[in-house]
Amino acid sequence: MLEVARKILEGDERALARAASWIENRRLEAEPLLQELFPRTGHAMIVGVTGPPGAGKSTLCDQLTRLLRSEGKTVGILAVDPSSPYTGGAILGDRIRMQQHHSDPGVFIRSMATRGWLGGLARATTEMAMLLDAAGRDLVIVETVGVGQDEVEIARLADVTVLVLVPGMGDDVQAIKAGIMEIADVFVINKADLPGAEKLERELKSYLALSHRPDGWTPKIVHTVSADGKGVAEALLAVREYYSRGGGRARAGQIWSLRLREMLRERLLDRVPAEEFSNAGRDVAEHRRNPYSILHDWLERW
Amino acid sequence: MLEVARKILEGDERALARAASWIENRRLEAEPLLQELFPRTGHAMIVGVTGPPGAGKSTLCDQLTRLLRSEGKTVGILAVDPSSPYTGGAILGDRIRMQQHHSDPGVFIRSMATRGWLGGLARATTEMAMLLDAAGRDLVIVETVGVGQDEVEIARLADVTVLVLVPGMGDDVQAIKAGIMEIADVFVINKADLPGAEKLERELKSYLALSHRPDGWTPKIVHTVSADGKGVAEALLAVREYYSRGGGRARAGQIWSLRLREMLRERLLDRVPAEEFSNAGRDVAEHRRNPYSILHDWLERW
Repeated sequence: MLEVARKILEGDERALARAASWIENRRLEAEPLLQELFPRTGHAMIVGVTGPPGAGKSTLCDQLTRLLRSEGKTVGILAVDPSSPYTGGAILGDRIRMQQHHSDPGVFIRSMATRGWLGGLARATTEMAMLLDAAGRDLVIVETVGVGQDEVEIARLADVTVLVLVPGMGDDVQAIKAGIMEIADVFVINKADLPGAEKLERELKSYLALSHRPDGWTPKIVHTVSADGKGVAEALLAVREYYSRGGGRARAGQIWSLRLREMLRERLLDRVPAEEFSNAGRDVAEHRRNPYSILHDWLERW
Repeated sequence: MLEVARKILEGDERALARAASWIENRRLEAEPLLQELFPRTGHAMIVGVTGPPGAGKSTLCDQLTRLLRSEGKTVGILAVDPSSPYTGGAILGDRIRMQQHHSDPGVFIRSMATRGWLGGLARATTEMAMLLDAAGRDLVIVETVGVGQDEVEIARLADVTVLVLVPGMGDDVQAIKAGIMEIADVFVINKADLPGAEKLERELKSYLALSHRPDGWTPKIVHTVSADGKGVAEALLAVREYYSRGGGRARAGQIWSLRLREMLRERLLDRVPAEEFSNAGRDVAEHRRNPYSILHDWLERW
């Protein structure tokens, strides 16, 4: 067994941080390590938390973390921010959180921002969750910042997906919801002390009455005011109920097939040198070559 | 030359609609058609319009379209909605628009919703823009619904990218902005009659003073009230100024290299039968096989 794998399994914090950096920076060392750690995964519950900006996801995740810590559980938080390719909001949020939890080795926090083209985040988040799982974390929260397709897909890779909504968000959010409603196992109506919480619950209920889930689960609707912790225990209960009924595990095969697709995709593209893409791009832009001929040539080659 | 290609170049509306459906449904017929049409592309200006929900992007796009039509220009609108995998908000917005423009053959509108896994939208949007370009549309507007990484990447594939913001959107939007600020060639402060428009402009200016663009362009900031058309002409002027100074074309090589990457990625994954992914996923979920061994096997095979 690799030295670093052994240390991670023993709970060594520094080895864990080093391995996390390997995953973030796509270092070659990450893969043999994760291959070795894989058999030790499958114990942590991975919870995806998604919802529109302003819904209060971060506060809810912090309150969940506080509750879990009071139970003696260890937690990993992966804050996924696909809209910050560089050093944007994620880093800021990270710092604020670090201050809250920095003295607690039971909370591991990482911001997952985009490094490059689409898709890399799903891979990195999956691998980071595997790492934390193998390292013995009881629960890993994957918190996404937005509700684009990326975020939805990343949230979908969790064992349990929580969709956080707030009352009175208007028509734009109604439109957004259409796409992510079907991935939620638990609906949280946050800021439920605001007007419109009951109306939103009625809307969710009428949506759920019409929808049909293959696993037979009726998603729970929980009211929270996460700023003061109200309802957070109920939210956690709903998450655990879905998990303990085997909900997440029933779709684990499907989730892994999506993850494998993601991982394969990146590895295939890694085979094409970046320079080849940029040369080909220039040729097409200047109409010297047809993009479809280039693709044909590339596909011929493998 | 293919019959359908000939008809599209002659301006046949029904042939155009049929080809658009091929692209949407990933029909095999699309590729030879686009290969044939490619040499006839490069005349349309592709304008990406992005920004947070509620910023009024659709209204702005409609007003731009009205203005362009009054100049006798033909327009294509591609409304990209990655968060609606099925029939969500996009279709509704589409219908409302259809009523406005349905009698005008100079406006071609399509909603681009997600069909499947990440990335498919970027390909379909690119191909649809190529089709409309070849069909002689003067301007193609690619309007995205959200500001996730997907939307940002899709907006980035345009010749000119417009970022629509509104005054007083709070901290969450500040965080979102960090990631998309650097792709905007033109900033539109919409609903500029609301309080906070000047403050937002000052913030943008201080951001721009610190940023440095490789093409030397200083992004324009335009105030609009798109509900009544105010400032829309100025926005179009700013878009055209950037375009005419060659801004978009200077990065066309880079854009095409990203597009080619996207196109190659999909084609590579198409080679793995869906069943193989789902079987492998089940094996991993049940810990019968290690995901990294599966990937290794797949990569060996090609």
